[in-house]
Amino acid sequence: MSDWKNLDELEAFHELEAVERVNLREVMSGENGAERVRTYHTDMAAGMSYNYAAKDVDENVLAALVKLAREAQLSEKYEELYNGAVINTGEKRLVLHQLCRGQLGKDVIADGVNKREFYVKQQERAAAFANKVHSGEITNEKGEKFTTVVQIGIGGSDLGPRALYIALENWARKHNTLKMEARFISNVDPDDATAVLNSVDVAHTLFILVSKSGTTLETLTNEAFVKNALRKAGYDPARHMIAVTSESSPLARNEGYMDAFYMDNYIGGRYSSSSAVGCTVLSLAFGPEVFARILEGAHEEDVLAKEKDPMKNPDMLDALIGVYERNVLGMEATAVLPYSQALSRFPAHLQQLDMESNGKSVNRFGKPMNYVTGPIIFGEPGTNGQHSFYQLLHQGKTIIPMQFIGFRKSQLENDVVIEGSTSQKKLCANVAAQIVAFACGKDDENPNKNFDGGRPSSIIIGEQLTPESLGALLAHFENKVMFQGFLWNVNSFDQEGVQLGKVLAKKVLAHDTDGALKVYSDLFEI
Amino acid sequence: MSDWKNLDELEAFHELEAVERVNLREVMSGENGAERVRTYHTDMAAGMSYNYAAKDVDENVLAALVKLAREAQLSEKYEELYNGAVINTGEKRLVLHQLCRGQLGKDVIADGVNKREFYVKQQERAAAFANKVHSGEITNEKGEKFTTVVQIGIGGSDLGPRALYIALENWARKHNTLKMEARFISNVDPDDATAVLNSVDVAHTLFILVSKSGTTLETLTNEAFVKNALRKAGYDPARHMIAVTSESSPLARNEGYMDAFYMDNYIGGRYSSSSAVGCTVLSLAFGPEVFARILEGAHEEDVLAKEKDPMKNPDMLDALIGVYERNVLGMEATAVLPYSQALSRFPAHLQQLDMESNGKSVNRFGKPMNYVTGPIIFGEPGTNGQHSFYQLLHQGKTIIPMQFIGFRKSQLENDVVIEGSTSQKKLCANVAAQIVAFACGKDDENPNKNFDGGRPSSIIIGEQLTPESLGALLAHFENKVMFQGFLWNVNSFDQEGVQLGKVLAKKVLAHDTDGALKVYSDLFEI
Repeated sequence: MSDWKNLDELEAFHELEAVERVNLREVMSGENGAERVRTYHTDMAAGMSYNYAAKDVDENVLAALVKLAREAQLSEKYEELYNGAVINTGEKRLVLHQLCRGQLGKDVIADGVNKREFYVKQQERAAAFANKVHSGEITNEKGEKFTTVVQIGIGGSDLGPRALYIALENWARKHNTLKMEARFISNVDPDDATAVLNSVDVAHTLFILVSKSGTTLETLTNEAFVKNALRKAGYDPARHMIAVTSESSPLARNEGYMDAFYMDNYIGGRYSSSSAVGCTVLSLAFGPEVFARILEGAHEEDVLAKEKDPMKNPDMLDALIGVYERNVLGMEATAVLPYSQALSRFPAHLQQLDMESNGKSVNRFGKPMNYVTGPIIFGEPGTNGQHSFYQLLHQGKTIIPMQFIGFRKSQLENDVVIEGSTSQKKLCANVAAQIVAFACGKDDENPNKNFDGGRPSSIIIGEQLTPESLGALLAHFENKVMFQGFLWNVNSFDQEGVQLGKVLAKKVLAHDTDGALKVYSDLFEI
Repeated sequence: MSDWKNLDELEAFHELEAVERVNLREVMSGENGAERVRTYHTDMAAGMSYNYAAKDVDENVLAALVKLAREAQLSEKYEELYNGAVINTGEKRLVLHQLCRGQLGKDVIADGVNKREFYVKQQERAAAFANKVHSGEITNEKGEKFTTVVQIGIGGSDLGPRALYIALENWARKHNTLKMEARFISNVDPDDATAVLNSVDVAHTLFILVSKSGTTLETLTNEAFVKNALRKAGYDPARHMIAVTSESSPLARNEGYMDAFYMDNYIGGRYSSSSAVGCTVLSLAFGPEVFARILEGAHEEDVLAKEKDPMKNPDMLDALIGVYERNVLGMEATAVLPYSQALSRFPAHLQQLDMESNGKSVNRFGKPMNYVTGPIIFGEPGTNGQHSFYQLLHQGKTIIPMQFIGFRKSQLENDVVIEGSTSQKKLCANVAAQIVAFACGKDDENPNKNFDGGRPSSIIIGEQLTPESLGALLAHFENKVMFQGFLWNVNSFDQEGVQLGKVLAKKVLAHDTDGALKVYSDLFEI
C-alpha cells in the first residue's frame, strides 16, 4: 500500500522549492530555445506529443519533479486505483473510469461482478440499441425512424458528452457517420428545455434521461418538460425515452423507458464520458464504432500513464509542472487554449473536471492543508481568444500559465489560400507565434508596447482531431488531474462542496427560511 | 481637467486599506443579514437592482469607497469622457461608445462632424437597410428574400454581438420578431467557416464583413471562404455581402459590397456592440425596433452612471467593490454567473470586455504600477455551473468573488410544475440559496462537509431578460470596467498586448524565423 502524505510533508517538495527559478525569457531565446523545443517533449497517444519547452522548467527543476513523483508514489497510487482500491475515501468507492476503456491491471471485482465485463456489457448493449435505431428496427410508435437524440442531464452528464459531441459533429458529417443529430438539455432554467424542444422535431426524437441516482432535481424537472411536450404532440413518452442510470435507481427496469443502460458508483459524473453516460448518446449520434475509437485513444493514453518515468509520461509530467507552477511559483489559474474550433466546449469540460476534482481545502483524511490546491481553469478557442482576453495574458499583472492544443491538419480539410497560405497554416502560425511571444516577450521603448515575456505555456500537438486523438486528450487531462490530486493528497473523486446549495434551495422551495435567505426569496417572489 | 493619479497615490486608498475587514459570515447571519439584503441595493436601469448585501463590505468600507470615488474623481473623468476628451491616451482617441446610445453631455465634434449625429445616421441607415431586406425590397440576385444573416468578424466584432443575439434569439422567436436567423464566423480555423457555411443556405444568406481597418487577417480570410462558397453555388458575392467598417477603410464605398455601415476610431472593438457592429446584424436579425430598445436600456444605465454618489450609482459601486476585493483583499478573479440560459455567452463577452480593457501593467502615462489591475473573468450559466466548478468556489483554497444575475420571470414563460414549484422558481431558489451558502457556509463535524463561508457575491436582479434589461446589463459592465480603469489609472481603451503575436505570426508565414519559433513552425509543418 502506498503512503498518503501531504505535499509539504515530502522532502522532494522542499528540494523543489529550493531549486533556482528558470528565466524563461532567457532559456527560450536563441539556439538554446530551439534546442529546448526539439528536446522538451514526450509522446502521447494517437500520435500526439506534449511539448513543454516553453514551461518554466529546466534540467534542475525536472530532476526535482522526478524525485517528487517518486516520493509521492504517483505510479503506485495509479496502480492501486486501476486495480480497484478504495481511492475515493470520502464516499468509500473505487475509481474505475479508466476500466471502461480497457484493462490496465488485475481483474476488478466489486459487488460480485467483474467490473470490466460490466462496462463492456453496457457498451455492447448501447451499441446494439444504437444499431437498431439506425437500422430502423427501433422506431417511434408510428414506425418512423428517430433522427435526433436529446440528452437530458447536468454537470458531468452534460459537459463532457456535449464537448465530445461538438468536437466530432462536423467530422462525423464529413465522414458520413453522423447518424443522428444530438442536442442537450441541462439547465433547470425553463428557457433551456423550451428552446431545445422548439428546435427539434419531437416526433422523431429519442430522449436520454441521465441521472445516476434517478433523483437529480434539474434532470427530473427537464424530463417532465419533455414528457409534456411529447404528450402534447400526441406521442407516448415511454416510446421516446431511454435512461442511463444506476441499476438500483428508480429509473432502472422502469416501464416508462424503452431501455436503460447502466453506470455505477465507481465513476464520478465528470469522469463519466467513457461510461454509459457518454457511450449511449455518442453511439447514437456517431455509431458505436466511432465511440469505440474514442475509447481506444483514451486507453492508449491510460497505458502511457503507467510509465514510471515522468519524463516519458505526459500525463504525470503535465501534472508535476502544474503543481510546481501552483505551489512553488504561486500561479492561480491555467488557461486552456485549443487552436481548433471543434474543441470550443472542451475548456468548459476541463473546467468541471479540474475545479470540481481538486478544488478542495482538506486532504483525504479530512485535515486542512497549508498549501493551495486546484487552480482556476478557463479558456476559449484560438485564434478567437487572441482578440479577447490574451491582452491580460500578455501584459497583465498576473502570470497565467497556458495549455495550448493544436493540430497540423484541419478537421474538415476544406481550406482557402490567402496571401500565400491556407487558413490552417495561419492557425498553426498563430499558435507557434503566441508561445514564443508569451515566453520571450519583446523590449520596446514605449512601455505600453513592451512585453516582459516569461509567461509559461505547453502545447499538445497532434496530426488531426479524430476520435482517437480526442479520446487521448480526454484521458490526458483526467490523468493529469488524478496525479495532481495524489500530489495534493486530496480526494479528487467526491464533491461535497455542491451539497449545501442543494439543501438551502430545497428550504427556499419549501418556504422554510429565515434571515437573509428569506429576504432573497422574497426579492425573487418565490 | 481631472487629475490622473495612481491608485496608491490616493489617500483614500490607504484609508480603505486600514478599514477593519468585514466578517461576511457573521454580518450575513440572522436578522442582521436580512436587514443587509433589504438595504444594500441600488437601482439599475430597466427596473433592475444591484444588491451587494453578500459582498465583504459594511458601512465603514462603503464610506471609505465613497471617499475613494471622490478623490479619484470618477464622476469628473466620466464627464470628460462623454464630453469628448482624449481618454484613450495611447492611441490619442476619444472614447464614445456611450454616445451611440444617447447624448450624455455636450455635443461632441470630431473630424468636423457631430459624432452623435454620425452614430444616429449609421443606425438609421442600417435600420432602413434591414427594413428593406425584411420587406423583400432588397433580395438576392434571383429576387428571393434573404432569410439568414452571417456576421464575419473576430474579437469585439464577434463576442458582444453574438452574446446579444443568443440572449434574445428565443425571445424574438416567441415575440414574432425573429426576422432572420444569425450565425457567426470568427476563427481563422478553416473548420469554423466550413461548418457555418455547411449549415446555412448560402443562396438566401446575407453576409456582413466586419473590420474597422478592413485589414484583419482572420476576417479577410473568412471573407474569401464565403466568397468562394457563394461563387461555387453560382451566386455573386457582391449581391450577398455588406461591410461594417471605417469610412477610410478599403471596404468603404467598394463595389464588392451592396452597402457599408460605418464605425470610427472612437469606439473600441469590445465596446462596439452599440455601434454599427452590433446594430447591423441585430437590426437584420430582430428588426431595428428591438435594437433600439437595447440602446434605450443601455442609455438609461449610462445616465445612472452620471450620479455622483456611488451609493446611488450601481456601475460605480460595483467598480469600487471590485477594486477593494482585488487590491485590498487580494482576490485574483471574478466569476460571472447568470441564472439565465439565454445569457450563456454573456460571460465570454465580459471576459473580453474586462480582461482586454484592464489587463494592463503600465498606467496611462506608461509607468509601471505597484498594484494589481484587472482580474481573471470566467463564468457559465447557473444552475449548470453548480454541477461543475462551484465545488472550488465553495471549498477551494482560493476565494473567488462572484457576480450573479437573475430574473424573476423566465424569458419564454413556458414552464412545468414539479414537486409544487415551477422550473423558474427552482432556478430562483437556487441562486438565492447559493448566495447564502457562499456567504454563511455551514459547520459540519465532518471536515469534508464543512463550509467556511465568507465568499462574497453580488446579484443583479431583474424582472425578465428583455432588450432593455440586456442593454442595461451591457452598459453596466462597460461602465464598471471604465470606472475601474479610472481607479487603476490605466488606459482601458487600447490593447497593445495583442500586437506581438500578430507580428510573429506574420514572420512564421513568411518563413522569416529562427530559434524556438523556427522549430515550432517546423513541428507544425508550416
